Amino acid sequence: MAAKLRRDPSPIITLTTDFGQHDGYVGAMQGVILSICPGARVVTLSHEIPPQDVHAAAFVLYQAFSYYPPYTVHCVVVDPGVGSKRRAVAVRTNQGIFVGPDNGVFSLVMKADGINILEAVTLTNPDYQLPAVSATFHGRDIFAPTAAHIARGVALAGFGPSAINLVRLDYRTGRTGAGQPDESRIIHIDHFGNLILDISARDIEDPEQVRFEIDDQVIHSLSYTFADVPDQHLLAYVGSTQNHIEIAVRNGSAAHKLGVKLGDVVKVSEIG
Amino acid sequence: MAAKLRRDPSPIITLTTDFGQHDGYVGAMQGVILSICPGARVVTLSHEIPPQDVHAAAFVLYQAFSYYPPYTVHCVVVDPGVGSKRRAVAVRTNQGIFVGPDNGVFSLVMKADGINILEAVTLTNPDYQLPAVSATFHGRDIFAPTAAHIARGVALAGFGPSAINLVRLDYRTGRTGAGQPDESRIIHIDHFGNLILDISARDIEDPEQVRFEIDDQVIHSLSYTFADVPDQHLLAYVGSTQNHIEIAVRNGSAAHKLGVKLGDVVKVSEIG
Amino acid sequence: MAAKLRRDPSPIITLTTDFGQHDGYVGAMQGVILSICPGARVVTLSHEIPPQDVHAAAFVLYQAFSYYPPYTVHCVVVDPGVGSKRRAVAVRTNQGIFVGPDNGVFSLVMKADGINILEAVTLTNPDYQLPAVSATFHGRDIFAPTAAHIARGVALAGFGPSAINLVRLDYRTGRTGAGQPDESRIIHIDHFGNLILDISARDIEDPEQVRFEIDDQVIHSLSYTFADVPDQHLLAYVGSTQNHIEIAVRNGSAAHKLGVKLGDVVKVSEIG
Repeated sequence: MAAKLRRDPSPIITLTTDFGQHDGYVGAMQGVILSICPGARVVTLSHEIPPQDVHAAAFVLYQAFSYYPPYTVHCVVVDPGVGSKRRAVAVRTNQGIFVGPDNGVFSLVMKADGINILEAVTLTNPDYQLPAVSATFHGRDIFAPTAAHIARGVALAGFGPSAINLVRLDYRTGRTGAGQPDESRIIHIDHFGNLILDISARDIEDPEQVRFEIDDQVIHSLSYTFADVPDQHLLAYVGSTQNHIEIAVRNGSAAHKLGVKLGDVVKVSEIG
Repeated sequence: MAAKLRRDPSPIITLTTDFGQHDGYVGAMQGVILSICPGARVVTLSHEIPPQDVHAAAFVLYQAFSYYPPYTVHCVVVDPGVGSKRRAVAVRTNQGIFVGPDNGVFSLVMKADGINILEAVTLTNPDYQLPAVSATFHGRDIFAPTAAHIARGVALAGFGPSAINLVRLDYRTGRTGAGQPDESRIIHIDHFGNLILDISARDIEDPEQVRFEIDDQVIHSLSYTFADVPDQHLLAYVGSTQNHIEIAVRNGSAAHKLGVKLGDVVKVSEIG
Repeated sequence: MAAKLRRDPSPIITLTTDFGQHDGYVGAMQGVILSICPGARVVTLSHEIPPQDVHAAAFVLYQAFSYYPPYTVHCVVVDPGVGSKRRAVAVRTNQGIFVGPDNGVFSLVMKADGINILEAVTLTNPDYQLPAVSATFHGRDIFAPTAAHIARGVALAGFGPSAINLVRLDYRTGRTGAGQPDESRIIHIDHFGNLILDISARDIEDPEQVRFEIDDQVIHSLSYTFADVPDQHLLAYVGSTQNHIEIAVRNGSAAHKLGVKLGDVVKVSEIG
């Protein structure tokens, strides 16, 4: 029934999980993948997503997916609802095929520039899952085999019925209007303590006339790069993730200096 | 002398170590492997085994090995006795070939359902080791080259004499009898704080009539999955590792809530 | 213009970064590499270099590079000067091709026994970089594509003009003279708390007549391996990294026991 999509001798499957690296759970998933699709090249995006943190996984995927060939299978397992009624889904787009729980983890990718959803299905066909599906490890028993079968060319229609109304997390889509005070939110804090905001370069009219306020700290314009400010000073700049605005401390941690956390507000205003 | 076992153009070698990821030690091992067996696909099970923790490595391997093709080479380097008289061994089974120090790290795998040891050797032949073997890094100088030579088809007999009486760690093999109070022990605490016990589903007669006690906390039956209990509540369930019983907190950490550690006792009793 | 160097269907590219594994930044780099050079085998040396710690990266690379085939591309991105005037370079040697910022990160490799620099260039040709180079993520936009293009056979001359006077960090090259008191420095502290010194076996005349002093602790000779001393005792020995002398505690952490840090002095003296 399922027509073959394509035949890449060494298809790419990326993995993003909150499994950490102590227990070998990701190792079990890779065994499943290589048993089903021996030619697969399995690449880690991250296994260090904080436990059950769907927003963090959404960001990591958003940050990386567009650098992969469009036929890449991106498998995400951050799944606080495992074993409940939440759907397991596969979503085919013009920029990659996404496999994981339907809990909003694909929300940021689905809002990215130029992305189009071509097809989405609910994973119900047991033929493409392990024979015994556990109640607590769908990464190994459902998502890994699904990713591997897609990678070896099984069409999405074979996995189950169409899925509509995918869960979307609430992310803003840019500023409401230029020229007035506005609130931005921190959507990710990275390993270096850099803060990634939910606004991007196109939300800023004039880089020299914008200011950012976090508590009592003010940044008076947009810099080009770290070296534009003295050591340990704050700066804002157009970051490397889809042109989102970031706030950093040169050779230091903005998260630490400012004591902020995910979701905190940064005031953005334009003078003039 | 050593007959060829098989010729897989891209054999799988898994690695499990306590080397961490700061120093590049695993990177050196991979260089050795790829120099000897350029087609090898090297997969990480874990490099985050706590230093010298042979029990943790035994669990990780046990949790993952059965998901790999039977000709996979599993190389484990958690080796507190490196440089001493402990043997270095390779063990061929019907479910994988295991390479590492003879310190009990393969104990749980060797007790798994359906596993049969077909052959075991002591690694003494210097032809299959690096020219200069250091006193402290046998992972790179002995185990990585051994795994790579096995992966490219060298038979075990070529590596050294038969090894008998492999070291076994003391793990129980199930309950002594149903219907009476019994003690179970925690054999692993995972990244999520879930507790994996040394008993499995087949040790429980009636999932509705079993109770678990840890200090003053009682769990009154076996649940199916996390979603069966309210947020932050304790549950016990048949886990995803070889049907072992696990204790968890929904969206939380059982290890943290209960303040337990590896080896601690959980009382198991059946009512009626 | 750029002649092809060679054509390996599955060339090896190693990665060493301070990106950690939370954000997927390394995942983006791997997507870039696999898009340009689909056959590349990407191997991690470490992504856990402490942020901006060029010395730690220099050691990791030094520890691992010589175990790789000589045509391996080693890509290092620990880059506190990203976006400033620091050069981006590629250096071809008889023991590997090195790609990264010109900040001294290749200093230890360039001092290794038997290494010869054959060619070095500054990475200025935008044809081998991503179309839009960000100001803050040259790992993804410059170094990953460079490594991938080299791996697929583009000659170094194509990337830009010759680079001379590469930055070298200040590492000593051995003892000034045997028989007199001398100072050694700690150049790396590894995951186990072992201390790697800047002197090597060839700097020691007689292993039985050498003593090491750190604060009030004295080690009276060179041991062969951990098992030569009682549990939790200090020892010095010829380590596994290019024969450098190491100081360790058997089944413990020398760094913790001695309270030392990178760069601290160890006194070395020979009696007799």
